[in-house]
Amino acid sequence: MNQNTSYGIRRLVLDVMKPHRPSIVEVALKLSKVDGVNGVNCILNEVDQETESLKVVIEGPNIDFDEVQETLESLGAVIHSIDVAVAGKKIVEDVETPQDR
Amino acid sequence: MNQNTSYGIRRLVLDVMKPHRPSIVEVALKLSKVDGVNGVNCILNEVDQETESLKVVIEGPNIDFDEVQETLESLGAVIHSIDVAVAGKKIVEDVETPQDR
Amino acid sequence: MNQNTSYGIRRLVLDVMKPHRPSIVEVALKLSKVDGVNGVNCILNEVDQETESLKVVIEGPNIDFDEVQETLESLGAVIHSIDVAVAGKKIVEDVETPQDR
Amino acid sequence: MNQNTSYGIRRLVLDVMKPHRPSIVEVALKLSKVDGVNGVNCILNEVDQETESLKVVIEGPNIDFDEVQETLESLGAVIHSIDVAVAGKKIVEDVETPQDR
Amino acid sequence: MNQNTSYGIRRLVLDVMKPHRPSIVEVALKLSKVDGVNGVNCILNEVDQETESLKVVIEGPNIDFDEVQETLESLGAVIHSIDVAVAGKKIVEDVETPQDR
Amino acid sequence: MNQNTSYGIRRLVLDVMKPHRPSIVEVALKLSKVDGVNGVNCILNEVDQETESLKVVIEGPNIDFDEVQETLESLGAVIHSIDVAVAGKKIVEDVETPQDR
Amino acid sequence: MNQNTSYGIRRLVLDVMKPHRPSIVEVALKLSKVDGVNGVNCILNEVDQETESLKVVIEGPNIDFDEVQETLESLGAVIHSIDVAVAGKKIVEDVETPQDR
Repeated sequence: MNQNTSYGIRRLVLDVMKPHRPSIVEVALKLSKVDGVNGVNCILNEVDQETESLKVVIEGPNIDFDEVQETLESLGAVIHSIDVAVAGKKIVEDVETPQDR
Repeated sequence: MNQNTSYGIRRLVLDVMKPHRPSIVEVALKLSKVDGVNGVNCILNEVDQETESLKVVIEGPNIDFDEVQETLESLGAVIHSIDVAVAGKKIVEDVETPQDR
Repeated sequence: MNQNTSYGIRRLVLDVMKPHRPSIVEVALKLSKVDGVNGVNCILNEVDQETESLKVVIEGPNIDFDEVQETLESLGAVIHSIDVAVAGKKIVEDVETPQDR
Repeated sequence: MNQNTSYGIRRLVLDVMKPHRPSIVEVALKLSKVDGVNGVNCILNEVDQETESLKVVIEGPNIDFDEVQETLESLGAVIHSIDVAVAGKKIVEDVETPQDR
Repeated sequence: MNQNTSYGIRRLVLDVMKPHRPSIVEVALKLSKVDGVNGVNCILNEVDQETESLKVVIEGPNIDFDEVQETLESLGAVIHSIDVAVAGKKIVEDVETPQDR
Repeated sequence: MNQNTSYGIRRLVLDVMKPHRPSIVEVALKLSKVDGVNGVNCILNEVDQETESLKVVIEGPNIDFDEVQETLESLGAVIHSIDVAVAGKKIVEDVETPQDR
Repeated sequence: MNQNTSYGIRRLVLDVMKPHRPSIVEVALKLSKVDGVNGVNCILNEVDQETESLKVVIEGPNIDFDEVQETLESLGAVIHSIDVAVAGKKIVEDVETPQDR
């Protein structure tokens, strides 16, 4: 199916909590190999004694969300919340409105 | 009709309240399959005990707003308000004015 | 006349007050069919018990302002003020100056 | 003379005070027909009982400033100040410096 | 010499004080005719009883700074400070660093 | 392997502490020669009596993180934290969400 | 060597202190003639009785840092700190992270 006409999840932004090991580098690499993913951006938000919270931005033509969850679980990580989900034939960006100000 | 000369709703920004299930991922996927929609961006604004409020940005050449409403209803979600509606042959962006400052 | 050399109103930003019905979607669609209009962006600013105030951005090669006013009147809406008017052979954007800061 | 090599006034930003009539739409249209003007952006800054103050951005290859002044006078409007004047073979934009912060 | 390989002053930002006459429009026009200048942006910063302070941005392949100074003197204007000087084969923009914040 | 289809670490942002010698210039040059690196941006964050803290942004098609660590160690520098790790077939940028505000 | 594949210092941001003479214009011109430099942006940060502090941004394919230091010394100027050093086959820009906010 042409990547530009298929329906699928195009972007996810997750709030993820993980132990200190494995490192943020390994999490990014592992997630980048999930089916339908082009790239992953892992951003360190907070560090506590035992855990770290990451903001994870994932983009691709048809992200396999189940495989994302399994991959994170295999790394000992937990999804706190799904902050953004973008789906369809193209990525639609957020648009500022008076309600945001 | 050539998508660039047809009149239609080109972008909607909705304030939507939904139960925790189905997830924001499913809402984005379901809405992305509505007639005349190219893509959907669901952004988590607030989480309460029973419900979540989402900002939903929908773009396409000729969005079928009735089908959007039906789809959301089928997911147990409610439109709190329509914050932005863009129509015509092309998407016109907001323009900052002194009144906004 | 070539759209790029004709003089005309190219953009209007209006502060509009309307009743709750018809919806912002219908206002955008109706205005998008006015002569000389390419697109319309209706942004919800405030909601009161009886009325809503919208910021309406209209763009096109040669906007028929009279028809804009008639269309709004037919929808029960009133123009509070014309915040921006852009005219000429091309759209000239605002430019920040020390006086704005 | 090739518009790109001629010297001339390329942009003016004026602080203009005008009576409520004629409207900002008419001011924009009239100014857009001045010699050497490509486009005009009239922005409503303040409204008082008798008058309105506008920020007027004018762009073109070789703006006839005298004709701008005559046109505004014919509309009953007064130039309070010339906030920006750009001249030469091309438009040079402002550049932020530590002194601006 | 090819404008892109010659060394020269490419941009100057000056803090200039001038009397009310001649106007900012004349200053911009006169400076735009200096050797090696493509364009000039004169921005009104402050107005006092006798004088006005301008921010003057000048760009070109090889600005003749001496002639800029002479031109300003001929207009009764004084350079308070040279806030930015850019030289070389191309314009290098400022880059924000932690020290600026 | 085509650089655009290979999986690898595409960007790292590190918080690095180093002694005053060697200089930030040498650190940037040395890191830029690591396998799979296109470029390195070293930004001075803080200076103390004995040490300096740098923000180091590294980009390339397939950054060898082990070699980055070895190179930093050889320069007497220590990685305080890995703030960002981007992996996959392309660089995915951060996306602002309500949670960031 | 092809400028795009050679390793070298691509950008430096320096905090420089200099006497009032020579002027910022002469500093920019002199630095722009250093080997491997395409352009120089000198920005006036502070002025004291005897000295001025400049932010100096230098870009080029392979900046000769020793010659930069010699040139500044010849002008009576001193490097207070090297705030940014960018090296490699291309310029890598800074990337905002939560740690910067």
